[in-house]
Amino acid sequence: MTATDPTVRDLSEGDVLRTVLGRLGPSSALVGPGDDAAVIAAPDGRVVATTDTLVHGPDFRLSWSRAFDLGWKSAAVNLADVAAMGARPTALLVALALPEDTRLSWVAEFADGLRQACARLSPGCAVEGGDLTVSDTLTIAVTALGSLDGREPVLRSGARPGDVVAIAGETGSAAAGLAALFARFTDAGGHPVRFDPARAGADAAAIDAQLRPHPPIARGAEAAQRGATAMMDVSDGLALDATRLADASGVSLALASEHLGPDPARALAGGEDHALLATFPADVGLPDGFRRIGVVTVRSAAPLLIDGSALDGRTGWDPYRDWDAERG
Amino acid sequence: MTATDPTVRDLSEGDVLRTVLGRLGPSSALVGPGDDAAVIAAPDGRVVATTDTLVHGPDFRLSWSRAFDLGWKSAAVNLADVAAMGARPTALLVALALPEDTRLSWVAEFADGLRQACARLSPGCAVEGGDLTVSDTLTIAVTALGSLDGREPVLRSGARPGDVVAIAGETGSAAAGLAALFARFTDAGGHPVRFDPARAGADAAAIDAQLRPHPPIARGAEAAQRGATAMMDVSDGLALDATRLADASGVSLALASEHLGPDPARALAGGEDHALLATFPADVGLPDGFRRIGVVTVRSAAPLLIDGSALDGRTGWDPYRDWDAERG
Repeated sequence: MTATDPTVRDLSEGDVLRTVLGRLGPSSALVGPGDDAAVIAAPDGRVVATTDTLVHGPDFRLSWSRAFDLGWKSAAVNLADVAAMGARPTALLVALALPEDTRLSWVAEFADGLRQACARLSPGCAVEGGDLTVSDTLTIAVTALGSLDGREPVLRSGARPGDVVAIAGETGSAAAGLAALFARFTDAGGHPVRFDPARAGADAAAIDAQLRPHPPIARGAEAAQRGATAMMDVSDGLALDATRLADASGVSLALASEHLGPDPARALAGGEDHALLATFPADVGLPDGFRRIGVVTVRSAAPLLIDGSALDGRTGWDPYRDWDAERG
Repeated sequence: MTATDPTVRDLSEGDVLRTVLGRLGPSSALVGPGDDAAVIAAPDGRVVATTDTLVHGPDFRLSWSRAFDLGWKSAAVNLADVAAMGARPTALLVALALPEDTRLSWVAEFADGLRQACARLSPGCAVEGGDLTVSDTLTIAVTALGSLDGREPVLRSGARPGDVVAIAGETGSAAAGLAALFARFTDAGGHPVRFDPARAGADAAAIDAQLRPHPPIARGAEAAQRGATAMMDVSDGLALDATRLADASGVSLALASEHLGPDPARALAGGEDHALLATFPADVGLPDGFRRIGVVTVRSAAPLLIDGSALDGRTGWDPYRDWDAERG
């Protein structure tokens, strides 16, 4: 196996880079990979920029996430942050820190995941730069850039009383998938064992939402075009993120549990869905893909109300709380 | 100490973030930190973008680098890549993955280093976004953005026979500093021991170049204005990076050792200086800060010549064997 699938230890940075670049497909940038920096079009004179990191341990387990999944997910979560500004993603930069025993085939499949996530979730966006280094801890830091195409950015702070609260994308599925992985793909000691899709059964869709999320990237720009007053990526659970949006806007959000699916508690608590939470003026129709879940009210003691009752939003997912080095 | 200087384990992501943001100073972005993404001005409709990662172990040792130094260096090395395109840095995004036992004071000093590097090396550029997570391995992934202000990017591929080869910044100092740290700040087993500036003696300047490099950021845009035909950041040593520029341009570079300082071998081999290597038409004066080191020739068998002798920067050249034999 080693002769045909060497490890990073046996390769130069240039060798690994050539494999990655060979998998990424053509650049659409003004200057793509290979120089000191990329040059990306920013047609309206502004660029949207965000960065998010996936770290082995807190953010994923290699027993459960294949290389393709990690390429996909690291692209998807960053594309979602661009979309949440009402922008169209234009480029990714990927900084990859690899343990020395990583196989070249792993890196190739990771690049395939990056490429296919861009192609499926945000056609026209591609990886235009990055960095390769070695590390004891597999770490994936992605920066996504985007264009507002002349629109104003949709901030978290723009919600106004009377607006409709709406959401596009999954709520709670990714967390349910993580719970299913912990329940069904761990050994007696609670350590992850290899995920086998053939044994996912009824949890297959939820596990897929966890390992390979499909945030509704194009909906972000559509929401902005329709006049969304506020928007954000729901990465830490609807309860926590809706509270953040309410706080940023100085309003309260009154949600109705009947609109939160079959398991509202799961929808409120579950993180990593990367749905788009947005508010719209009451007199505009919601864009395709958004469903109404409540209304914006004047600020009351509670930032978030579910069926009229206050909910403490600090029940979402916080990476600093969940990581358990013992459990891996 | 714990009561007044808690660790990341004891804090929420929000707690740590507040400390960082409180140290970074005012944002100059259209949308700064705090939303899903930043929005940065790209006045000429293009943005330069680059990312580079510092990983504990391969890239730094905590016994030698203080938090301030790491904030400074992670900013400096990325600013240099923007400068090497002939661009003016406009923003940094910083993804920081911290071990749980990291002290909050460490994070604060790291932020101070980021801020001061921007203020000193590239006034007007600031940290406008980022990400905080936990990791077993301290990892700093920085993305730098920049503006070409209407100029064409200066690529590695534009050098033409007859051009002058010039460099701005240090050559070999950072590597000499690293050698001094290994020689003087390790224990009998070769493990790093705490660096004490008071004991740096004659190596103080070199060690400073290693821990807190001062790349000539503003020189990049000045070189572009003066008509530089090719440029790159010298991060892996002049021999290797000059070879890359020669290969990208399809030319050879003929350098004169008399222009490479008191220790040409060190200048050619040493990495991490983040000097700017550039080529200029012969009929333009060099901008301030650049010194002539050679000329561009038509491509010959060797991409790099020193005093007329071939030097292959790609093949593990041993400066002491080859260079000193040549010089007698």
